Amino acid sequence: MTSHATETRPAAGTPGPEESAPVLPLVDFRVEPSRYKHWRLSVDGPVATLVMDVDEQGGLVPGYELKLNSYDLGVDIELYDAVQRLRFEHPEVRAVVLTSGKDRIFCAGANIRMLAASSHPWKVNFCKFTNETRNGIEDATANSGQTYIAALNGTASGGGYEIALACEHIMLVDDRSSVVSLPELPLLGVLPGTGGLTRVVDKRHVRRDLADYFSTRSEGIGGKKAVAWGLVDEVIPRMQWQEKLSQRAAAAAQASARPAGGPGIELTPLAKTRTGTEISYRYVSAALDAQRGVAEITVSGPETAPSPTTGPSSMAEVRALGADFWSLAVARELDDLILDLRTNETEIGTWVFRTVGDASEVLAYDSLLLANAGTDWLANEIVLYLKRTLKRLDVTSRSLIALIEPRSCFAGSLLELALAADRSFQLFGVFEEVDPDAAPAAITVSEMNLGPLPMGNGLTRLQTRFFGDPDSLSEVEKRAGEPLEAEDAEQLGLVTFAPDDIDWDDEVRIAVEERSSFSPDALTGMEANYRFAGPETIETKIFGRLTAWQNWIFYRPNASGPDGALRAYGTGKRAGFDRKRV
Amino acid sequence: MTSHATETRPAAGTPGPEESAPVLPLVDFRVEPSRYKHWRLSVDGPVATLVMDVDEQGGLVPGYELKLNSYDLGVDIELYDAVQRLRFEHPEVRAVVLTSGKDRIFCAGANIRMLAASSHPWKVNFCKFTNETRNGIEDATANSGQTYIAALNGTASGGGYEIALACEHIMLVDDRSSVVSLPELPLLGVLPGTGGLTRVVDKRHVRRDLADYFSTRSEGIGGKKAVAWGLVDEVIPRMQWQEKLSQRAAAAAQASARPAGGPGIELTPLAKTRTGTEISYRYVSAALDAQRGVAEITVSGPETAPSPTTGPSSMAEVRALGADFWSLAVARELDDLILDLRTNETEIGTWVFRTVGDASEVLAYDSLLLANAGTDWLANEIVLYLKRTLKRLDVTSRSLIALIEPRSCFAGSLLELALAADRSFQLFGVFEEVDPDAAPAAITVSEMNLGPLPMGNGLTRLQTRFFGDPDSLSEVEKRAGEPLEAEDAEQLGLVTFAPDDIDWDDEVRIAVEERSSFSPDALTGMEANYRFAGPETIETKIFGRLTAWQNWIFYRPNASGPDGALRAYGTGKRAGFDRKRV
Repeated sequence: MTSHATETRPAAGTPGPEESAPVLPLVDFRVEPSRYKHWRLSVDGPVATLVMDVDEQGGLVPGYELKLNSYDLGVDIELYDAVQRLRFEHPEVRAVVLTSGKDRIFCAGANIRMLAASSHPWKVNFCKFTNETRNGIEDATANSGQTYIAALNGTASGGGYEIALACEHIMLVDDRSSVVSLPELPLLGVLPGTGGLTRVVDKRHVRRDLADYFSTRSEGIGGKKAVAWGLVDEVIPRMQWQEKLSQRAAAAAQASARPAGGPGIELTPLAKTRTGTEISYRYVSAALDAQRGVAEITVSGPETAPSPTTGPSSMAEVRALGADFWSLAVARELDDLILDLRTNETEIGTWVFRTVGDASEVLAYDSLLLANAGTDWLANEIVLYLKRTLKRLDVTSRSLIALIEPRSCFAGSLLELALAADRSFQLFGVFEEVDPDAAPAAITVSEMNLGPLPMGNGLTRLQTRFFGDPDSLSEVEKRAGEPLEAEDAEQLGLVTFAPDDIDWDDEVRIAVEERSSFSPDALTGMEANYRFAGPETIETKIFGRLTAWQNWIFYRPNASGPDGALRAYGTGKRAGFDRKRV
Repeated sequence: MTSHATETRPAAGTPGPEESAPVLPLVDFRVEPSRYKHWRLSVDGPVATLVMDVDEQGGLVPGYELKLNSYDLGVDIELYDAVQRLRFEHPEVRAVVLTSGKDRIFCAGANIRMLAASSHPWKVNFCKFTNETRNGIEDATANSGQTYIAALNGTASGGGYEIALACEHIMLVDDRSSVVSLPELPLLGVLPGTGGLTRVVDKRHVRRDLADYFSTRSEGIGGKKAVAWGLVDEVIPRMQWQEKLSQRAAAAAQASARPAGGPGIELTPLAKTRTGTEISYRYVSAALDAQRGVAEITVSGPETAPSPTTGPSSMAEVRALGADFWSLAVARELDDLILDLRTNETEIGTWVFRTVGDASEVLAYDSLLLANAGTDWLANEIVLYLKRTLKRLDVTSRSLIALIEPRSCFAGSLLELALAADRSFQLFGVFEEVDPDAAPAAITVSEMNLGPLPMGNGLTRLQTRFFGDPDSLSEVEKRAGEPLEAEDAEQLGLVTFAPDDIDWDDEVRIAVEERSSFSPDALTGMEANYRFAGPETIETKIFGRLTAWQNWIFYRPNASGPDGALRAYGTGKRAGFDRKRV
């Protein structure tokens, strides 16, 4: 990946947990197909093919070679970009074949030397992003009518098999050598980090004892046994490979309910300026204060509605605006900002969200999208993208605080920012000294908050907020569409605190400063628990249960110590384990 | 706690993760009310009162004082014993008041100096046991008709509040100083370790942003706000305290559906011999092989049925046998063995289970219990105890392997041992050289496997095994009552492998040896994920999500390093944090 900024940061590529490290360029998540090093995307009518063909020398960080189609963050950034572009730029695509451009190997998973050389925060953040991309593949299959088919034309091990697990259908070539495997435990002393354990039993329903055996067998399983155990859906001899693959892709495309209607919307390059203290896009900006460990993020509402009168009027206008359409632009900008801050600004532990703009315009944009999401692919995609971006926020290991002030527009889709926050403050009244003529701060619940943007646990943020308290939720639903000033919002349970002008600065300052004084680890753990009340899904299990175990395992000397399995791998030395079971 | 063995082990009481440590006596989990140092148990008709009055000098390990009703493992061992005895020895009890014998303090939680001085494995094991005891309190309320009421006659902080959270009703004295709090994050840089975060939002439905605020406010919350936020059920002035408490206890007892029928069954002292290589009870024994890291556990079936003919005939006979009744004796012995091995033998990473006996007798005992569990308190208690003991196995961080051989009795309740195992092997045929005349190894599914012994996820072990595969489950159910030899059992998916006489030794040996060669941490993580396919409950969230995060946080320098918050607490020094968010 190229870096567009002159600034540098401590590198990921350093052994051991949190040791100091050489400086490296900031990671940039913006890429486009013409700059891909590792993937080839081709489209043939309703079927797209995404070929993984990793450039061994194209690692994001120096110090390792991406052999055997193994991947690092740079490879996954391209995959994420491809998945996104398929949704927006190729509305005609209804099935996506994921396959390999190498001979006899589909993908060897995350690069082990990269992992062994990475700091703990880098490893954890890397796994989070790759998990989100796998979830996005499942979301495209489930909700966009773009069904992913894993065409394993060679062995898929570790993270390679986990990419396949995110697909709806897994085909494995039957050539007496190609297998699927999860060799992380026996070879590396860690867990599969991209949902493997969860998807094997919870999605593919492989029996737990067979899953246990499979995950300790580094040589993997192929052929009929892989089918019988449910690890893959079918094995196919090489002779019939192309024919069967074409059949499966055609059938998946045929079964898709994706609404017709091209052409696509080009995801034009995202304009961004970035310094060490400021990140700015058109509608989203962030002021970074390294000293206080705070990013102050401001999201602007639509400048003008897409039609001359207030409020947009048709999807045709939206299509004409393309990537400039406010809802889509905001989703892209927020998405990029979240990824940038998570990866490049690990010491900024608190994100403070504000909005600026006209709530009625936000609601008008939302309404247009929801009125069309059932029939118009683009409206559907924009709502789904908002959903995924907000989910990214939910699993972000930063404290999130929302400040609801006069002239803000926390309504509908933007109200979700406040509902995603760990705490929210709504000013009671106005700032008498600064802006006495403003209308008092208000928030508005709308249909956008009542279903279309569920969290990973399958519930809306409001349902999660009022988990086990249906009466309070029902009271809130009754007030949908009504601007709620601080007293009402607090009484309804929609905001945490509603200080007045006199107390505002102190209360907010104390909340933010206090956050910076706490253990960052404990905050991450607490937030990960409180944000997901209620039911669990494959997604929340991956980010909660599996990720938490993996973080612990990654951090322990048995994996990352000088004699740990991750460091010993490939050196010819045996890993030295402390055998105590914890 | 007294130790009954001469052997010693490395102590818990050593700073930092896994450093070497002085030797300490083995921890013994067997205790009885006359030997309690920290609790007083009294019974008045249908209401029992359990008074926590911790002996400051009575710590299990030297080096700390148990001030302010703080607890260590020894205190919790007594609490566990009391909860168990209430169920078996006091069938007349229908409500249990949990309160404090100290002035103005209910309980200050787990002792911080103890935690700071403990090794990582000790801390994790301690939290596991305390969690199981809290879950047992909820189980008594939900399933035994013994409703627990937390009578907070003073401040309950941290683990103290978590004890209250495990109770059905929380009363807090309203005296302008008594509060509830979870100060772990702000004061210690760790999470509440006994289910606090999960129960606050998932059980008590405290709103997530209020829960966040509460958990960062070390001074706690009391009075009306504690009620309004749902942290406690009621606050009561001291003047009315006794009266209201009596009313609540009487009402809870009144509402209980616990079947009548005394007297209780005395939990007589558990006979046990223990050396460094052998632990033996009447029906359960374990051979410890430190070299291989293996415990070979054998569970014997009933010697003779309680009635002269095969199979027990009435609960009156069971009552007469009391703690000698096989099902109850086996549950107690297994329970003690699990706790002993988990605490005292951390390097024994693989537990191999065998059974010896007559399957039809096991099934007869099970049938008697199930026929009476709905109406007879003792039958109900024994089944519930089996359930809890098997749940303890599910959350044990050891690899579990079941070996099903001729002359074994993996049927009904004992089949659950094989279903709890990570892998099972059933001999195809017999051992031709050793015992050619034995009947071939068989297992039997019975009604005991189809409902009464659910796992923490709310599903039976069979439902979990066949999660997402109802057809296979239905095939198994059809074969209930039928002895299934290896070929059938393997084909039905009830055992992992069915090697014959020729392959048996090698296959089993390789499986066991291989287990000892893997990273113990990665095994723990894998098993914790694969054992709990399907839905999550408060219980599985506590052991999966919350515990995994807590383990990671405990292990990080921000908590346990030389400048970590756990170590800095009480020294006057501020904790030094690496501020990177991971």
